[in-house]
Parts: sequence; C-alpha cells; structure tokens
Amino acid sequence: MTTSVAHDRHEAGATASTPVRVAILGAGNVGGAVVSMLTTDADAIAERSGVSLQIAGVAVADPTRTRPGVPPALVTGDAKALVDDPGVHVVVELIGGIDPARRLVEAALSAGKPVVTANKELMATHGAELARCAAAAGVDLLYEAAVAGAIPIIRPLRESLAGEQVRRVMGIVNGTTNFILTTMSESGASYGDALVEAQRLGYAERDPSADVEGHDAAAKAAILAALAFRRDVVAGDVPREGISAVQPVDIAFADRLGYVIKLLAVAECFEGPDDIGSDGEISVRVHPAMLRSTHPLAAVRGAYNAVFVEGEACGELMLYGRGAGGVPTASAVLGDIIDAAHHLRSGAAARLVPRGRARIRPSEDLSCAWYLNIDVLDRPGVLAAVAHVFGDHGVSIRSMEQVGLGDEARLIFLTHVAREGDVLQTIDGLRALDVVEHVGGVLRVVGDGEDD
Amino acid sequence: MTTSVAHDRHEAGATASTPVRVAILGAGNVGGAVVSMLTTDADAIAERSGVSLQIAGVAVADPTRTRPGVPPALVTGDAKALVDDPGVHVVVELIGGIDPARRLVEAALSAGKPVVTANKELMATHGAELARCAAAAGVDLLYEAAVAGAIPIIRPLRESLAGEQVRRVMGIVNGTTNFILTTMSESGASYGDALVEAQRLGYAERDPSADVEGHDAAAKAAILAALAFRRDVVAGDVPREGISAVQPVDIAFADRLGYVIKLLAVAECFEGPDDIGSDGEISVRVHPAMLRSTHPLAAVRGAYNAVFVEGEACGELMLYGRGAGGVPTASAVLGDIIDAAHHLRSGAAARLVPRGRARIRPSEDLSCAWYLNIDVLDRPGVLAAVAHVFGDHGVSIRSMEQVGLGDEARLIFLTHVAREGDVLQTIDGLRALDVVEHVGGVLRVVGDGEDD
Repeated sequence: MTTSVAHDRHEAGATASTPVRVAILGAGNVGGAVVSMLTTDADAIAERSGVSLQIAGVAVADPTRTRPGVPPALVTGDAKALVDDPGVHVVVELIGGIDPARRLVEAALSAGKPVVTANKELMATHGAELARCAAAAGVDLLYEAAVAGAIPIIRPLRESLAGEQVRRVMGIVNGTTNFILTTMSESGASYGDALVEAQRLGYAERDPSADVEGHDAAAKAAILAALAFRRDVVAGDVPREGISAVQPVDIAFADRLGYVIKLLAVAECFEGPDDIGSDGEISVRVHPAMLRSTHPLAAVRGAYNAVFVEGEACGELMLYGRGAGGVPTASAVLGDIIDAAHHLRSGAAARLVPRGRARIRPSEDLSCAWYLNIDVLDRPGVLAAVAHVFGDHGVSIRSMEQVGLGDEARLIFLTHVAREGDVLQTIDGLRALDVVEHVGGVLRVVGDGEDD
Repeated sequence: MTTSVAHDRHEAGATASTPVRVAILGAGNVGGAVVSMLTTDADAIAERSGVSLQIAGVAVADPTRTRPGVPPALVTGDAKALVDDPGVHVVVELIGGIDPARRLVEAALSAGKPVVTANKELMATHGAELARCAAAAGVDLLYEAAVAGAIPIIRPLRESLAGEQVRRVMGIVNGTTNFILTTMSESGASYGDALVEAQRLGYAERDPSADVEGHDAAAKAAILAALAFRRDVVAGDVPREGISAVQPVDIAFADRLGYVIKLLAVAECFEGPDDIGSDGEISVRVHPAMLRSTHPLAAVRGAYNAVFVEGEACGELMLYGRGAGGVPTASAVLGDIIDAAHHLRSGAAARLVPRGRARIRPSEDLSCAWYLNIDVLDRPGVLAAVAHVFGDHGVSIRSMEQVGLGDEARLIFLTHVAREGDVLQTIDGLRALDVVEHVGGVLRVVGDGEDD
C-alpha cells in the first residue's frame, strides 16, 4: 500500500522518523492485548496513525512466567527501572489498583514522560493530584480506557464538550451488572441464577462484589463527574447501591409499567444563578433505577456499556460500546498512546481541565420519582393507613396498583418527584405500621421527563 | 466561582491572557447560535474551557438586515476583509455551499489561520485539497459539525480510533428522513403524509429533495469514509437511493419479520492480505435498508442521528445524539473553536490523517441479503417460475411468504447473502415474466450477522 498513500508533510516525516518507545507496565488481559497489537500490527498502526510505536519493555510481577504473545526479551520484573530508562518516551500503566501503580505513574510524570493508564481506581482516588503532577511537568496523563473500555467518552467530555454546560451524565458503566439485569429481565431469572450465568460466561468474577455492589461503577462515576463538571470528585464522594436486592418481581412490575431496571452511574450539576450557569453543587451516585423503556439507555443490553450526556447546547448524546474486555480496552489505550506520541512530537500536551473543589449536594436533598413495592396485610383500611404515611411526609402518589397474595396484598406505588429525605422517612414510617409486612423494592425512577 | 477554581498552570495563564479573536462567516441558524453563545456565555466558556474567545466580526450577505442576538457593530458585508484582518485568529465558516465558502476557507488557511467549518458539501467535495492546504500552513481544519450535528464523531474517528482497523461505519445521518421513516413506522402513515408532517414541524424543507433523495447523507458518508479508512472519498463516489419509494407495506412486512427500515450511510473496508489489513477496496453508499430491530441503530427514532462503528479491536461502538438544529450544531462548532484556540496557543495543529486515493469496489460486487416484494398473478406454477429466476442468477432464497390480494398474490422474499449484480439481474428477469405484475419494495438487509 505504501506507494499509493500520500501522507501530508507532517505525517510523512513522522512515519519515517525515530519510533516512539513505549513502556508497558502490566501484562494481564489489557496489557497482553496492547503488547500483541504493538508487536503484530506495528506497521499497520504506523500507516494509519502516522506515528511509529515500539515497545521498550513490559514490566510484570513474575518475569519468569511465560506469556503467550509477549516476547520474553522485552519482559522485566523491575517496573521502576523501566520507567526510569532514558530510552522510554511514554509509560502505559496497566497494573491496576493504587500501589505500586501510583508510585510508578508519579515517577513517569515527574520525569517528564506522558502516561497512559486504564486504572479507574487510581484516577478516581488520586486523579486530581496526578493531573496537577502532569500539568507541572507539561506532559499528558490520558485515561480513556479507565471508563467504559473502548467507548470514546473521556476525549469527548474533555474536548468536544469543552465549552458545554453539561447538566447530567448517566452511564451504564459496568458490564457485569448490566448482563445480570438484562438476563433477569429477558429470562425471568433470579439475581442468583443470573449471577451464576455471568460467572460461567466470564462476565463476573468469582467474588463479584466490586461489580454487583457498585464499587466499580462508583469509581467511573467519579471520573466522569470530575470531567463533565470540571470539579474534583473522588470515589468516596459517590454513594452507591448495588443490584443484589433487585427482585424478579420488581423487574416484572417495571416491565408492566413501561420501564427497565438498570444500574446507573448518575452525575448531575444543579442549575443556579452564577456565571458558569450552575449553583456549584453537584451530585454523583450509583444505584439501580427504573428507566423508561423508550430511553436510549434502556436498549443497552448484556455486557455493553453506554454513557448518556445531557448538555445545555448539545442536547442529548449517547456513546455506546464494549465497556470491558482485553482487546476493546486495549483499543482505547492504543488511541491514547498515539495521542501521547503525537503530542510529544509537536511539543504540546493535551490540555487539562480546570478544576475546583466539588460541593456535593446531600443525597437527602435530591429529588426524583420513586417506585415502592410494599407487602401489607389484606385488611380494610390498610390502603388509607399507608397513604397517610406518604401524605405525612409530603410524598405525592402518582399511581398505585394492588395485587392480592392470599392473606396479604402487594401495593405498588409510583410517586411524583419527591425529596429523597422525605421518601426515606416515608419508608421508615411504613415499616413502623403493623399492617406492613415488608417494604420490598425501592427504586428511583430517572430520565422520565418529570424530573428533568 | 472564580475563587474556588484552581486552574492548573497552563490554564491560569490562558484564561487571563489575550483573547482569541474569532471571525464568524454566516449568521444563519448555526452562525446565529454560535454568535449568541460567544456573546452571552463568554465568561462561562472561558471558565470551563480555559480559553477566552472574542468575536472579531460576523460576515453576512446583507449587513443591513437586523438579526436578533447579533450585535450590529460586529456585522460586516465584507467576508474577505474580515478573514484578512490581522486581528482575526480563527475563522469559522458557516455559510454553507461551495462558493464563496471555499475561497474564504482557502484564504484563511493560506494566511495561517485555523478554520472551523460545519460545511458538509465543501468537505465532501474539496476536503482533501483543503486538508493539504491546512497541512502546508501547519494549522487546523476542523469540521466536527459537518457530520451529525452535536454528536462527537469526527474527533473519535480521527483520534480515539487512530490506530484502529475500522471495518464498517453505518450511520443514520439525516434527521429528516429518519423522522419520516419513524413516523411511517409508528403511525402507519404514507411517505407523503409523513413528509407533510415533517415539513409542518420544520424537520423538512419545502423542497425536501436534498434530504429525501439522500444527497445530504451521501456528503456525510463521504466525509466519514475518508476519515475512517484514511482515503480520499468525495460525495460523487457515493451511490445513493432515497426513501421516496419506501411503501407502508414494506414497513409493515419489515416489522412482521423483526426489522425496521432506516436510511443508512454505509462505508465498508474490505479485508485483504496486505499490511494494513485491507485489500484497499472500500464501498460507500446511501440507501434505505432493513435493519434487525434489536440492532442499536434500530432504536434511533425521530430526528435523532447515530453513527455505528465496527472495528477490529474496539468492536461495536455507537455515537448518538442530535444531528441537526442551530444550537446543537453550534455546540460542535464551539468545541472545535476551543480546540483551535488551544492549538494556536501551544503552537500545535491537530494532526491530519494520512490519505491515499480510495479504490471503490463496484456496487455490483457488493453482497448482502435482500428483501423483495413482488406482486404476481395468482395462478398455479407462478411460484415455480419466480423461484426459477432467482435460481438462474444464483440468488438463494432464505424465506418466502405469500399473501393473497384477490386475483393477485404478493410474494415476500428474503434472500441469503447475494451479489448485488446478481440480484439486479434477478429483478430484470422477474420483470420480464408475464405473471409478474410489479416488483415493489427492494431493500438491502444489513447488520444481520450473516453478512458480517
């Protein structure tokens, strides 16, 4: 092909010139895929991207283990020495977790080497310090792969929407939980059975808690909120609820009412009078939610991810794709490596986003509509007693449905938009009633128009 | 807010320093929205983006006309003088059409001024020359708003997927036709009635041919293909079919068979043995197609747009949002202006994509499954005669359904994957049969797995 391809002046020089040497830290799922791309597709990547990339070394915990696709000559057990090697131009951190990843990233940035990372924990915990470290050194810190795998979301938020007043970001950012909820929804399976199926197919870990309890999604939510609202947000700012309490009965009711249940990472910026169009308060949270079945996120099935962005000028955007997996995630890493290589050559670093401290609105002050599923004794006067509790706390009922269950009845409520604090007090009040046997599913209803 | 926002070193300088002065050419729908953002939200945009933008002037055809939101002092009738003004740093071309837009863009680039444009005709016709002109001057030529309005698609293709072997791009890139097809599908309306409704709501022009005959989508398809495959592709390379022949009966059959009908821009790169993983042939086309109703593009309703990308490593990605409208399109223009301003400051231009001449695979050599709707006389032996024609041209039938219509019968065929040339010959053969009254809907079936 070379003869038929006319590079423009900038590119022609680059392709022919000195390769950019890349240190890969970690050779797991993603690291292995990156190494494989950079070894087997190097010429094609140079052809397409205009930069020539070369692996300087691959740092692993146990260098004696053979890894298919990783040339043994490139392997080292000394990550720090590889980062410090003057022949290394770009450092790619794919170890995961906080330490030693953090130490190595800091060492690279301090030495003036751009860093590409897929490490959501690190970016959700120390992202702000690391960004300052990168800014001080005038080099890139790129992390497209840390959120939603192959889906371009970091770059659009940082660049395409740089001038945009983003109002809300809602994401399905955990493939494991979306697979489980999709399976429950489409086959009627219980949570436990769907989890076992996810484990069998490799979508869930043996210990699934990081996924199903929302920790993974909370880290990604913090990263998205920080970028969307130009504020420092850490994973610890993100209240989370997992999906293990979601019951088939709730999914069936949701379906009947025209909703699906999804685990959502939600970040919102509240409108206000000041000059950046917000009152400076934001909310970031992870919870299962009922979403109208016509909402674009409702069609995101199985292990796919998607991020839905609502902005003042851009309106509604959605970015959809594979949120996990070695090769798709490696694709995002590769895009960042190419960016870093281009920036190195032109002497420019990716611009960083100005950030202020986030003021988090207390969750009891958030408002949305709610779904509640309550088992009560089937006696005259029960509905009045239950309705009274809603009224006492100023929670207005939009619809109610009653289903008989022998001596008991099940009441399904949808409320109008209500303060979370008031709804929690309502639930406490309901639990205190003798006639209430059980308060089952309690789910927020989001993206439904009324709360927008 | 200023006191609580800690900019990093790079940004702090920028916000405080000299504003970047922007010339706006054209004050229509999009131009007016850009002017309004840059006048009323200037401080907020500087706060969020780290660059201060100032309008140097707004060039319009008739400077005597009053335009709400456009300060009269900024208006000029002399676009060329504005572009040449040494106080102008960035030129934003929102005039549309080829001339004078092309002349003004060339003048700006030649003078070393980055250009932001939303002009799909210009980019689809002269994109390659203009890109060479920008490369020679070492400045940006940015056109995110030229395809799919607010949706970030140009930047992800150029940057996020810089190293990716993109296999196929399928887009719903025209909101007018998607609105019409959605209306036909959801209300059973005829094409004519749906068009009138689209005109009433402002989604379709009085003369709708640029949209409904696929010209608009073909220009966007050329731009997407050029970026995705790093090849020169112009609108004239793109065969197109519009939607005016789509009948309610085809939509009803599609629905029954589990499909929806969408006007798609499709760009494909064929696999081959060479070092960039392709045989160098591509195909770019616009036509209505039957799409499985579970495909992510099938859920794109009304005037929304979406672009679905399939790549070797990234897998399937979809980018969804508002494809038109002054304010959403202005949002994409603003993102590009901010990019250009940052690049000006750092002395770097956005990298350009190496391009070779495209080799277009002749459309008769393309293969996919097909839907055909044929009215025949209801006589014994007719089906055998019809099936014979398919067989003669090597087109294999996957399913057939017969519906009685009085003296006639309607035959609905879905074929297996077949060469387009063979299908066209089959249709000629069918038309030549005495028993065939009419060959009605003929639609490609895409994204259905079998053809992937």
